[in-house]
Amino acid sequence: MKTRAAVAFEAKKPLEIVELDLEGPKPGEVLIEIMATGICHTDAYTLDGFDSEGIFPSILGHEGAGIVREVGAGVTSLKPGDHVIPLYTPECRQCKSCLSRKTNLCTAIRATQGKGLMPDGTTRFSYKGQPIYHYMGCSTFSNFTVLPEIAVAKIREDAPFQSSCYIGCGVTTGVGAVTNTAKVEPGSNVVVFGLGGIGLNVIQAARMVGADKIIGVDINDRKAEWGQRFGMTHFVNPQKIQGDIVQHLVALTEGGADYTFDCTGNTLVMRQALEACHRGWGVSVVIGVAEAGKEISTRPFQLVTGRVWKGSAFGGARGRTDVPKIVDWYMQGKIEIDPMITHVLTLEEINKGFDLMHAGESIRSVVVY
Amino acid sequence: MKTRAAVAFEAKKPLEIVELDLEGPKPGEVLIEIMATGICHTDAYTLDGFDSEGIFPSILGHEGAGIVREVGAGVTSLKPGDHVIPLYTPECRQCKSCLSRKTNLCTAIRATQGKGLMPDGTTRFSYKGQPIYHYMGCSTFSNFTVLPEIAVAKIREDAPFQSSCYIGCGVTTGVGAVTNTAKVEPGSNVVVFGLGGIGLNVIQAARMVGADKIIGVDINDRKAEWGQRFGMTHFVNPQKIQGDIVQHLVALTEGGADYTFDCTGNTLVMRQALEACHRGWGVSVVIGVAEAGKEISTRPFQLVTGRVWKGSAFGGARGRTDVPKIVDWYMQGKIEIDPMITHVLTLEEINKGFDLMHAGESIRSVVVY
Repeated sequence: MKTRAAVAFEAKKPLEIVELDLEGPKPGEVLIEIMATGICHTDAYTLDGFDSEGIFPSILGHEGAGIVREVGAGVTSLKPGDHVIPLYTPECRQCKSCLSRKTNLCTAIRATQGKGLMPDGTTRFSYKGQPIYHYMGCSTFSNFTVLPEIAVAKIREDAPFQSSCYIGCGVTTGVGAVTNTAKVEPGSNVVVFGLGGIGLNVIQAARMVGADKIIGVDINDRKAEWGQRFGMTHFVNPQKIQGDIVQHLVALTEGGADYTFDCTGNTLVMRQALEACHRGWGVSVVIGVAEAGKEISTRPFQLVTGRVWKGSAFGGARGRTDVPKIVDWYMQGKIEIDPMITHVLTLEEINKGFDLMHAGESIRSVVVY
Repeated sequence: MKTRAAVAFEAKKPLEIVELDLEGPKPGEVLIEIMATGICHTDAYTLDGFDSEGIFPSILGHEGAGIVREVGAGVTSLKPGDHVIPLYTPECRQCKSCLSRKTNLCTAIRATQGKGLMPDGTTRFSYKGQPIYHYMGCSTFSNFTVLPEIAVAKIREDAPFQSSCYIGCGVTTGVGAVTNTAKVEPGSNVVVFGLGGIGLNVIQAARMVGADKIIGVDINDRKAEWGQRFGMTHFVNPQKIQGDIVQHLVALTEGGADYTFDCTGNTLVMRQALEACHRGWGVSVVIGVAEAGKEISTRPFQLVTGRVWKGSAFGGARGRTDVPKIVDWYMQGKIEIDPMITHVLTLEEINKGFDLMHAGESIRSVVVY
């Protein structure tokens, strides 16, 4: 079949909108009509050539929502018409990781996914007879795409695609870091470093679970209003305080935060986030992705006196199990998404979405097919 | 009253055995006759002048066992004749830390303890009219000593002093890191870096809780036998393998350890311990105390992909609650202590205990009064 898609033919070039050839689903796979897709920093990271393992030509995009149109042989958990969110972190429920009950990082198809291939080692996309590679196992910048059954979350049908696509990455990453990775309890004091889309989702999840102080930290004062919009109780601009940011936060939280979240990707900020934790029990969660080669450091005394340093990928969420729950929370009004969708674009306008992100003018741009 | 004690008059000098003056217990305090005390690396660290906050003249020693001989006004939980272990980490059950249910690091008397004083800001020891300072709130290198009630664990009377004194620091630090801090589950794979006294106690606790592989890592081959004695299943000398120790351990554990423990104090080893953890869930616990100024580092990717970096002080044990349980485990044969007591000395021989430690010839030397 044919599908319209935005193709990344090479790094550092705008995406090109073309009509591609798409093979139908093989056994264990499903064909999905993507109805909406967010544009995430990770797509830009790859397109801008920062990912040394980036593969081209490929179809980027990993934050989508759509409808199953066809299922391959042996598929039992999905049927045509199901509303779904593609998962860049699958959930096979059979590998060592899935069976560990301790992680969401399913390894069932990791090897092929990292090479831009479907689990059988081939691509479904081609253009003029040449293979076009998949991206993060999703390739949501194509109107139709093919995914393994284990990498598809079935969601309720009354959830709008335009907002629920954001649950495919950013929302789950931020909300899940609070609910799955940190397991923030009611009454906790929380500090969030970096008030981009992930930070705002951390903030609203902290509000949802009943945190007391929810302190946002950003060097951009204009972020304060965004933070407050989603439940932030205090804003700190580290460039506008007297003295050290860690000491400032420890004082503001009367001894240190119960939970801190790095949503910046800056390794110096990650250290501040750890050291702003309360002695004895504070937990710091690294969410941001650091530049290649950068390292985090601290004195081991910080750990020996009870602080915990951990990280979160895809919000610790098991895709097929937890993503539908987050869709429910959105539909029940426990979390908000609509105000974060600052720009709605057509596929033809997708490069504008990248420009808006680079200019810091969007929280989330969404392409609607 | 008078008491015999080994006094550290200044750093880098041998202890001197003298007869001191000791004031009786003030309200909330108890007088304890120390029956036995271990000699710990931390005592040597202070005596050798490495602790910039070390206070002299003082009475070192923090790993004791003895009998309550007198109680001050208002003491309700202890009476003369009780067998006890002094606690350098008290348990007041009323401070923010104690009430958090998340840490053992009681802060009730931290300020005065760090200054070598009792909670009322004075010392009980004096020599020729000059004050002699307390050490870690315990000063077990004195035949009699005074402690606050909240810093005394009552233990069963059938436990021998000579072995149970070791529970006052080393045993609890190692065993508790496994049971309280890491909460190692049956079937886990565990790697222990450094097979000194702490490492051996980590090993035997891992055995107690039903770990599968218990891998000991040490650059001294002679430690292998000691590790095996307490439940180690595999020994690795990093200097005698091909290639990288982390890769070696990841292969040996089929993907990485569920739990690793640093018992070396070496910050490079701490990094290896983290990185030898299994992707998705491996937890690394720092127990060793690093040199002043040294830092730990890693790529944040290690955390984002699910490894957790934490630390443990006094094995995460609440002294009055958990130390008596560890005495029970010893008396029930769940853990062993006797074979670790390699040397039994008189107070007059105490400097020999430090020499044996520095020469690496003891696991634990104990002074019996």
